[in-house]
Amino acid sequence: MLLSQLELFVKEDLGEMDASSSIVPEINAKASILAGEECIVSGLDEADEILKYFGLEGGRLVPEGSRVVAGSKVFSIRGRARSILQAERLVLNFMGRMSGISTLTSSCVERAGKVRVASTRKTTPGFRFFEKRAVMVGGGDPHRFDLSSSVMIKDNHLKIMGLEEALRAARASASFTKKIEVEVERAEDALKAASLGADIIMFDNMSPGDIREAVELLIREGMRGRVLLEASGGITPENLSEYAAAGVDVVSLGALTRSARWIDFSLEVEI
Amino acid sequence: MLLSQLELFVKEDLGEMDASSSIVPEINAKASILAGEECIVSGLDEADEILKYFGLEGGRLVPEGSRVVAGSKVFSIRGRARSILQAERLVLNFMGRMSGISTLTSSCVERAGKVRVASTRKTTPGFRFFEKRAVMVGGGDPHRFDLSSSVMIKDNHLKIMGLEEALRAARASASFTKKIEVEVERAEDALKAASLGADIIMFDNMSPGDIREAVELLIREGMRGRVLLEASGGITPENLSEYAAAGVDVVSLGALTRSARWIDFSLEVEI
Amino acid sequence: MLLSQLELFVKEDLGEMDASSSIVPEINAKASILAGEECIVSGLDEADEILKYFGLEGGRLVPEGSRVVAGSKVFSIRGRARSILQAERLVLNFMGRMSGISTLTSSCVERAGKVRVASTRKTTPGFRFFEKRAVMVGGGDPHRFDLSSSVMIKDNHLKIMGLEEALRAARASASFTKKIEVEVERAEDALKAASLGADIIMFDNMSPGDIREAVELLIREGMRGRVLLEASGGITPENLSEYAAAGVDVVSLGALTRSARWIDFSLEVEI
Amino acid sequence: MLLSQLELFVKEDLGEMDASSSIVPEINAKASILAGEECIVSGLDEADEILKYFGLEGGRLVPEGSRVVAGSKVFSIRGRARSILQAERLVLNFMGRMSGISTLTSSCVERAGKVRVASTRKTTPGFRFFEKRAVMVGGGDPHRFDLSSSVMIKDNHLKIMGLEEALRAARASASFTKKIEVEVERAEDALKAASLGADIIMFDNMSPGDIREAVELLIREGMRGRVLLEASGGITPENLSEYAAAGVDVVSLGALTRSARWIDFSLEVEI
Amino acid sequence: MLLSQLELFVKEDLGEMDASSSIVPEINAKASILAGEECIVSGLDEADEILKYFGLEGGRLVPEGSRVVAGSKVFSIRGRARSILQAERLVLNFMGRMSGISTLTSSCVERAGKVRVASTRKTTPGFRFFEKRAVMVGGGDPHRFDLSSSVMIKDNHLKIMGLEEALRAARASASFTKKIEVEVERAEDALKAASLGADIIMFDNMSPGDIREAVELLIREGMRGRVLLEASGGITPENLSEYAAAGVDVVSLGALTRSARWIDFSLEVEI
Amino acid sequence: MLLSQLELFVKEDLGEMDASSSIVPEINAKASILAGEECIVSGLDEADEILKYFGLEGGRLVPEGSRVVAGSKVFSIRGRARSILQAERLVLNFMGRMSGISTLTSSCVERAGKVRVASTRKTTPGFRFFEKRAVMVGGGDPHRFDLSSSVMIKDNHLKIMGLEEALRAARASASFTKKIEVEVERAEDALKAASLGADIIMFDNMSPGDIREAVELLIREGMRGRVLLEASGGITPENLSEYAAAGVDVVSLGALTRSARWIDFSLEVEI
Repeated sequence: MLLSQLELFVKEDLGEMDASSSIVPEINAKASILAGEECIVSGLDEADEILKYFGLEGGRLVPEGSRVVAGSKVFSIRGRARSILQAERLVLNFMGRMSGISTLTSSCVERAGKVRVASTRKTTPGFRFFEKRAVMVGGGDPHRFDLSSSVMIKDNHLKIMGLEEALRAARASASFTKKIEVEVERAEDALKAASLGADIIMFDNMSPGDIREAVELLIREGMRGRVLLEASGGITPENLSEYAAAGVDVVSLGALTRSARWIDFSLEVEI
Repeated sequence: MLLSQLELFVKEDLGEMDASSSIVPEINAKASILAGEECIVSGLDEADEILKYFGLEGGRLVPEGSRVVAGSKVFSIRGRARSILQAERLVLNFMGRMSGISTLTSSCVERAGKVRVASTRKTTPGFRFFEKRAVMVGGGDPHRFDLSSSVMIKDNHLKIMGLEEALRAARASASFTKKIEVEVERAEDALKAASLGADIIMFDNMSPGDIREAVELLIREGMRGRVLLEASGGITPENLSEYAAAGVDVVSLGALTRSARWIDFSLEVEI
Repeated sequence: MLLSQLELFVKEDLGEMDASSSIVPEINAKASILAGEECIVSGLDEADEILKYFGLEGGRLVPEGSRVVAGSKVFSIRGRARSILQAERLVLNFMGRMSGISTLTSSCVERAGKVRVASTRKTTPGFRFFEKRAVMVGGGDPHRFDLSSSVMIKDNHLKIMGLEEALRAARASASFTKKIEVEVERAEDALKAASLGADIIMFDNMSPGDIREAVELLIREGMRGRVLLEASGGITPENLSEYAAAGVDVVSLGALTRSARWIDFSLEVEI
Repeated sequence: MLLSQLELFVKEDLGEMDASSSIVPEINAKASILAGEECIVSGLDEADEILKYFGLEGGRLVPEGSRVVAGSKVFSIRGRARSILQAERLVLNFMGRMSGISTLTSSCVERAGKVRVASTRKTTPGFRFFEKRAVMVGGGDPHRFDLSSSVMIKDNHLKIMGLEEALRAARASASFTKKIEVEVERAEDALKAASLGADIIMFDNMSPGDIREAVELLIREGMRGRVLLEASGGITPENLSEYAAAGVDVVSLGALTRSARWIDFSLEVEI
Repeated sequence: MLLSQLELFVKEDLGEMDASSSIVPEINAKASILAGEECIVSGLDEADEILKYFGLEGGRLVPEGSRVVAGSKVFSIRGRARSILQAERLVLNFMGRMSGISTLTSSCVERAGKVRVASTRKTTPGFRFFEKRAVMVGGGDPHRFDLSSSVMIKDNHLKIMGLEEALRAARASASFTKKIEVEVERAEDALKAASLGADIIMFDNMSPGDIREAVELLIREGMRGRVLLEASGGITPENLSEYAAAGVDVVSLGALTRSARWIDFSLEVEI
Repeated sequence: MLLSQLELFVKEDLGEMDASSSIVPEINAKASILAGEECIVSGLDEADEILKYFGLEGGRLVPEGSRVVAGSKVFSIRGRARSILQAERLVLNFMGRMSGISTLTSSCVERAGKVRVASTRKTTPGFRFFEKRAVMVGGGDPHRFDLSSSVMIKDNHLKIMGLEEALRAARASASFTKKIEVEVERAEDALKAASLGADIIMFDNMSPGDIREAVELLIREGMRGRVLLEASGGITPENLSEYAAAGVDVVSLGALTRSARWIDFSLEVEI
């Protein structure tokens, strides 16, 4: 991460004049980071950067993205006691939030079989990179990062300008290096979008049954090979496998970042 | 929020060259923000600031912190269609994340009766202000903001320097304007902390029964009036009322920010 | 543009304590911006933002991207004389640099006929957005903005990991929302890349004749419809039409940003 | 350069989530930077800083400002293959842009003989420091950096307040540590400016002949020794020697930064 | 200090293109920092950080906060001569300003006996952290850092909302982790504030005699033990001991930061 | 001032979550800023910008730089009560610090007669612009702003490279638009510097008598007209007139920024 970004995070947790860690004597200490529950660990890269910023030596004991059981030691740290206390909460917040997302993503990926599992732009403002990275660590697809990454024609675009005009405008103005994705709610629109040159079609808030019919229509019309198909809207870890079975290439769900519980990690100083 | 901070959020979602909203014609439009489920709404102040940044007029239809039912229209917007699409996701992410926290906090506050419900520093890096503000909108106490806000002597401090030395150092070095809080795991330590001048005692990871006994010891020793008492560690919305009934002034739980699900909001353009 | 970015540009030209404009009395004035030579004008959007920052009223007299003759008045300005002098150089630098690129791009676009003309990442550090926008104003394609926009497998990738492994890794790790482009120097590699799933094939530093042969190979093998084809390397405004005639969809040339002369604009105060 | 500035440049080229270099395996590699044409090399200091930022070891093979022939190896690099690919374009853009300016400046300096060759404030917004530094590497004079560096009374000042008042105001308000320069278009104004205490007189858009006459007038009036004389406006590498021969101390030309073509450099990975 | 903050300071003193240190040849040198007068030295931590930023080795010869006599060598430096000249003024400005404050604070602390001596928010904008730190090095209390650190109800609050309402609002809205302080100008208000739950009472602009009476009233009413008492307003190093003797716990004075003269330090290069 | 800079100042005084002003009800109020003592007022421009940032209307009642008596109302303010309390301290700190400097400068300017009074680079880190501006408001000369503003050859340069080499290097490398100043401690060096082309000679730490002799030497040698002469080092408001009478053009003293006491201003809310 950029140093300027890291310093914003550090400043947020230390405040103007750290009154808490500064009472600790000038000694060195060791510490460990322990997982409080079974999970897919992520955020170790970020932990490394934070520890380094504070002048601490950190050694990861498991690789990023590995599954660990409750009580596992995942990181060992060495350095100024004061700095350990200053880095503690920031490191744990990164690992707790990111591992929560990676763990949930991983379980969705398992259920999805060969279908890709993707996240959305429903992320915490200012923290998207790390949430998307956690999705990737968990085996998921980050989907587009921002409004510049690819062109997505969504329901509000359609209300404003209609499908044909939106696709025409997208093809005219977007770089040839970008994919164009269209949200549709009906099989016919999927067919239309495919024939107008969309690269990806997202079935938005459609039932698995309706999606399957739309996929079959595309197959019948010889359009299936030209487009990637994504199901989105109303998908949860629970019903995900039904959507995955509907013939799409990707299922995307906001739940990866919106419903993921944090994983509990703790940092224990050893003297 | 500072403009420099707002621009970081905007840049994150727009990316370098917005390829998606730019296909929309130069027309004006209206839009509404709708709650997808019952909740305590928060983030309206932030929504206002974001809309204003994009040159949009926004009118809130309910006050910050009000309880609304599913389907309620909470915001109406007017302005350039293109700007509405650019602001959409950022506004919804603020409202979704913050309202989730306010809603969970509010339900905990109800269960706690007269006891304060406080959050922790277990927050998403870079987004703490908004998560703490959502706690306050939900009726909760933000607790300390950062390591500078007050002095907290935690388990790792105790391992490094012991309770007496930690309290002595805190009183010597911290400004008289700051409170000193000590985490304890046993009744005797609570008594010791109180007699050494702690302002707040946090019972960390103790059962409601053990907390009650510690409170009674403080009462017996005439120390109860000198300190505020906080229960923390292992508290969930489900068991919170038991802790609240144990005689403390405050219960604090990381769950407010770590387990809160996002509330579903949508923005619908009307032409 | 973000205010924080605009302020960096303003600070660069004003320095710590403007000693030059501050000698001007506190009066209002009018001014015009004149084109010193025939060109495609661009940078008017940026000029607007800069003038607004300095509290000036600015009215554009021609639309962004229009062709104007030498001596045309393209902008009229009104406000504090001092502020006009402060904004002058920054506005002219934006317009001079951007119009130079738009003008060169436009002439390339004319020569290319139906083939797209794209720029590259060979841009002035810190100014890429504006240089790419100038390409678009001139009718060109911005190509990918940065290393995140799409996956491009270039000569150095191929040396490190070979074509097959590079494509395999790209397809495994990149989001399904991104296109994958491969640079090739021989027809066989183009065929291989197409059959391994590349979305775009760039013929790098190949002669128009060699490119034509490669295109024909792809046609013969039934692969032409699956990929977009780009010619790049050694293309200049002079030889561009030969490359455009070689059967590709896009020609890209660094010259758009590297060889564009600035257009001469001047700001004249009228009292 | 400041780290905060370097990170803006890095972020611009990497984008949010580098999808291109990240496909490269975790191996080390070597690379060279080669000049594609004869030039005066500059930007090596910046290349060093960028490589260091990416954790790469870089060794320059020629000194900053040396003349090299086409095909010369100017830099050798060693480190993570992935980091080499990330640094590549930014390093090349610095070197290409800066060396272009240094090369053009150097050829102008040769033609100017003992007369100084200076650049102007006609620079790419945000990149002025590097463009001025490239001028210096090529043997030129950077001229004033910004509106604070010295006081320059230009045509628009004169229209607003007249020469006498402008010089009076400049002498009254500017620090004694700054030089005062006046643009004139006629010999009489040069004489007037000199007698009113200007430190530098710039002959703006005057022919070499008219400049020579103005210089002679100053000599006759005993003022030549009190002022530095600069010719500017309409000067090109082609006609520069005529201006240099007109009796001035300095010729300045926007062409150094506005017309300089980029020099072609390439980075080649060796495995 | 954050690197981003340090770079702002460095940029301020170096400007865009250092024209002064750059004339120095590329040699190494040694240098010493000498105190020009007796003082309490502070700013050594900051000096260390600045020297490190410039790649210099610095060794402090006395500890932060020690009293030194005129002529004492307090720092030795080694490294590039050019970098020494670049760091010189910034290091000396930190040490001169901070040592001035520490020295004045220290003399006030001596006069105050057991009573704490605190600073105020009357600090140079942008430099508060360092001024407060200098107060601490001199043995003083930094008092609250900003409007978020604790709740202070001041004269203007009282005019707007009255004492009772202000205290009620403060207790309702502020976190339980923050102290509440009230400014009073009369003994009765002190009593009222104490009984309404204020943690700290500040006697504002009262004479030592009036303060003593107010303290006695609080003692008589059994309230003295519940509150900390601070005297402020009109206190100078000269009259401080009278206020300290009036029965308060703290005296605070803006003079620590507003009247402190700078200490004279010089940096001498040794070849 | 740049908005990004203003926000740093605002953030410094408000902290993360303003707990003090937020207790004030949502009402409007009026307020005045009063001078507590006779002074030259400055900082009104900055006060204006800060008030505007907080959405307040401010009207200055006296012009920047005017002399006011104790008790004078210098500013009236209107707007949200809460915002007035938030802006209060920052506005007062600007005005108190700047007016102190302007007042001291003004009294020095009076004593100096026709000789210019200049400040130095001995300023509070991060606040130089405002301190230099306060010097100008008080009638003083800001001297060079930073190491880039002009070339100053100081004692440490002389130790490293000697006077002749330093002047040679300065003339070779510095832009012709910059003045070159040399610090000397003896009359002969002044003569040497003048004959080697220095623009300004600073007599450093010399007595008024020695300075007078040096000036006479320069007159005798016909060099006085070629250089500006500055006295510096050991000059105080008390002895300044002796230095001013020694024949120099400028006296400069660090005391303007280092010894200036703050002027007392207060903000009083009126309901």
